[in-house]
Amino acid sequence: MGSTAAEERAMRRALELAAAPGVPLGPNPRVGCVLLAPDGSTVAEGFHRGAGTPHAEADALARAGERARGTTAVVTLEPCNHTGRTGPCAQALAAAGVRRVVFAQPDPNPVAAGGRETLRAAGVDVEHGLLEEAAREVNRVWSIAVGRGRPFVTWKLAVSLDGRSAAADGTSRWISSTAARRDTHWLRALADTMLVGTHTVEVDDPLLTVRDEHDRPRERQPLRVVMGERDLDPGRRVFNGDAETLHLRTRDPHAALAELHARERRHVFLEGGPTLAAAFLRAGLVDEVVAYVAPMLLGDGPQAVAGLGIRTIGDALRPTVTDVTVLDGVPGEAPNVRLTMTPHPEGA
Amino acid sequence: MGSTAAEERAMRRALELAAAPGVPLGPNPRVGCVLLAPDGSTVAEGFHRGAGTPHAEADALARAGERARGTTAVVTLEPCNHTGRTGPCAQALAAAGVRRVVFAQPDPNPVAAGGRETLRAAGVDVEHGLLEEAAREVNRVWSIAVGRGRPFVTWKLAVSLDGRSAAADGTSRWISSTAARRDTHWLRALADTMLVGTHTVEVDDPLLTVRDEHDRPRERQPLRVVMGERDLDPGRRVFNGDAETLHLRTRDPHAALAELHARERRHVFLEGGPTLAAAFLRAGLVDEVVAYVAPMLLGDGPQAVAGLGIRTIGDALRPTVTDVTVLDGVPGEAPNVRLTMTPHPEGA
Ligand SMILES: NC(=O)c1ccc[n+]([C@@H]2O[C@H](COP(=O)([O-])OP(=O)(O)OC[C@H]3O[C@@H](n4cnc5c(N)ncnc54)[C@H](OP(=O)(O)O)[C@@H]3O)[C@@H](O)[C@H]2O)c1
Ligand SMILES: NC(=O)c1ccc[n+]([C@@H]2O[C@H](COP(=O)([O-])OP(=O)(O)OC[C@H]3O[C@@H](n4cnc5c(N)ncnc54)[C@H](OP(=O)(O)O)[C@@H]3O)[C@@H](O)[C@H]2O)c1
Repeated sequence: MGSTAAEERAMRRALELAAAPGVPLGPNPRVGCVLLAPDGSTVAEGFHRGAGTPHAEADALARAGERARGTTAVVTLEPCNHTGRTGPCAQALAAAGVRRVVFAQPDPNPVAAGGRETLRAAGVDVEHGLLEEAAREVNRVWSIAVGRGRPFVTWKLAVSLDGRSAAADGTSRWISSTAARRDTHWLRALADTMLVGTHTVEVDDPLLTVRDEHDRPRERQPLRVVMGERDLDPGRRVFNGDAETLHLRTRDPHAALAELHARERRHVFLEGGPTLAAAFLRAGLVDEVVAYVAPMLLGDGPQAVAGLGIRTIGDALRPTVTDVTVLDGVPGEAPNVRLTMTPHPEGA
Repeated sequence: MGSTAAEERAMRRALELAAAPGVPLGPNPRVGCVLLAPDGSTVAEGFHRGAGTPHAEADALARAGERARGTTAVVTLEPCNHTGRTGPCAQALAAAGVRRVVFAQPDPNPVAAGGRETLRAAGVDVEHGLLEEAAREVNRVWSIAVGRGRPFVTWKLAVSLDGRSAAADGTSRWISSTAARRDTHWLRALADTMLVGTHTVEVDDPLLTVRDEHDRPRERQPLRVVMGERDLDPGRRVFNGDAETLHLRTRDPHAALAELHARERRHVFLEGGPTLAAAFLRAGLVDEVVAYVAPMLLGDGPQAVAGLGIRTIGDALRPTVTDVTVLDGVPGEAPNVRLTMTPHPEGA
């Protein structure tokens, strides 16, 4: 039967609420909810503030109290059906006397799905698909991660023009410009997990924390994960107290992601080295590539990636480019180019 | 004493004439000239149409005839002092009764310089430096080439994101997108000489001609030069009749450029391979780098450049970036990024 103009306006508002800045990231999606009276006026609004806090629907219902009865709930995501840290929203909406539910994106999570059936069984009128694409965009990474049952993987590489990730003697500070390194910290902050191979920890001794423009660690830190079978010196900086750290003693990318999924990790930021990156690429487990190209020639030194098993130009890995941004340098520094790419169709 | 407002207007017009499209390129600079009456009105205009045709001053004087007497000649380049295919312009201006000469850029060519002294000796008032930077820009490559006494060298490279110039089996058609290849043909057309190493001719068998968007050779073709000591199969496509070809049997970049300078070549477009490019880079003989970065991963295959003798990141070759352009692909093709760079300060 479709949705009304008031419902579409409410959905735009719910999307705004969902995308509200300052909402801490976590394993959960961003969700917004608006309760509409039969005359189209707003009764209450709600949104989800991260794991352990009420879902958007529960938030709106609590604000509405008795006034929730007879309203239409406009929600960016299908109301959940399972009991996690909060009760299932589908039941809560029905119990509060909500007459109709309009949601944008179906729940991609097979565990949480089923909300619409629960609502319909309780006699609630259900409509969906309104502004679905926009809603999916708000939770792009989460939707893909939950749909695939493993974390979304962003592989970041910093290369010279001739494809080197370090000079002949192994030094790589700094290939990227200050602007590119800052930009990387912004992207790291969007992920919940940092991942590198054991050899990078041995050679580069990286901190793997998210730092601000004054190089101070931010309050919320992604989990640091080192992958590989060898023992590591506990004195390496990655094991300091700045953030939590996990050593996954495996070389199997599937097993590593399964373990991280079980720990409710949704977004892995893979920062190398070349060996680990190639293993993830070969396994088809890279969802996004972010490459920073520095206008610099090295002529020798380790490659950014090697051993993909590609013999001929026709077999080249040609990711789809979704963005090209020129990052202007601070005075005295060269611009760097950031390319964002998707190795495989997002639905695949 | 400085120049008048009318002279500045005339210089802007002379620069326009110099940069007129359609002027065929050759060993000579682009020059424009405007003859002004004492009241500031234009008596005649002239510009140079390429080697073998009159210089801009001679062109304007011919159009003015007797009316040249008592005028001010506003010229983008210092009037020449030597007798080439046409007589020296300095003498011709004085002989025509020109009262005053205002020029923008001093002649960087030590052979042709001395025009201002000749004019002054003949009693002509001389002023220079008006819009000098703009004039230099019109003949940027020529000015540098003539100033250095060797052709300006543009090194073009096409690389995958991981710095490969071909796949493991040597195939490299096509790393660049259609848009990047077309762009390359535009840049080739600006040069008067194409240069590659013998090995590239053996492996790739390139045509090295400038072709239009229908892949048809353009009318004017740069000289094709192959550099290296080995004998080459005369059946290679570079030796076909589409353009002139020269095999320089040397490995010395200085000697090669001296020979090309003697042949009045001003702009060499170096298209590889990696070995020859590295030799020119090491010799400090690359004036401009144009890199096309294709968002593609190969993992193996020859490097775009190797053996620069760089050991550590601090010694990386960090050219100054003068332009970054994203070349959008034809539908179905990825955007490529073109970076234009200067390896050393232009004045150096
Ligand atoms: N420019 C950049 O963006 C960047 C980023 C990172 C690193 N780097 C550079 O990369 C270099 C280190 O490269 P790398 O490739 O040796 O380091 P790496 O990929 O970090 O570590 C390789 C190690 O990871 C372990 N591993 C885990 N899973 C694996 C799998 N599926 N397949 C193979 N090995 C697996 C293996 O060690 P075990 O024996 O422990 O299993 C392997 O030896 C350093 O020079 C560093 O500076 C550059
Ligand atoms: N993607 C691109 O932009 C691009 C462009 C060109 C080539 N390529 C690829 O590059 C590969 C060929 O590379 P390459 O480096 O072997 O070819 P190259 O640089 O074209 O040729 C190397 C040869 O040039 C001669 N030479 C001339 N001057 C030299 C000097 N100063 N130092 C050393 N040698 C000098 C030597 O041969 P003599 O024995 O004859 O003296 C040398 O073996 C091919 O796979 C080709 O597909 C890619």
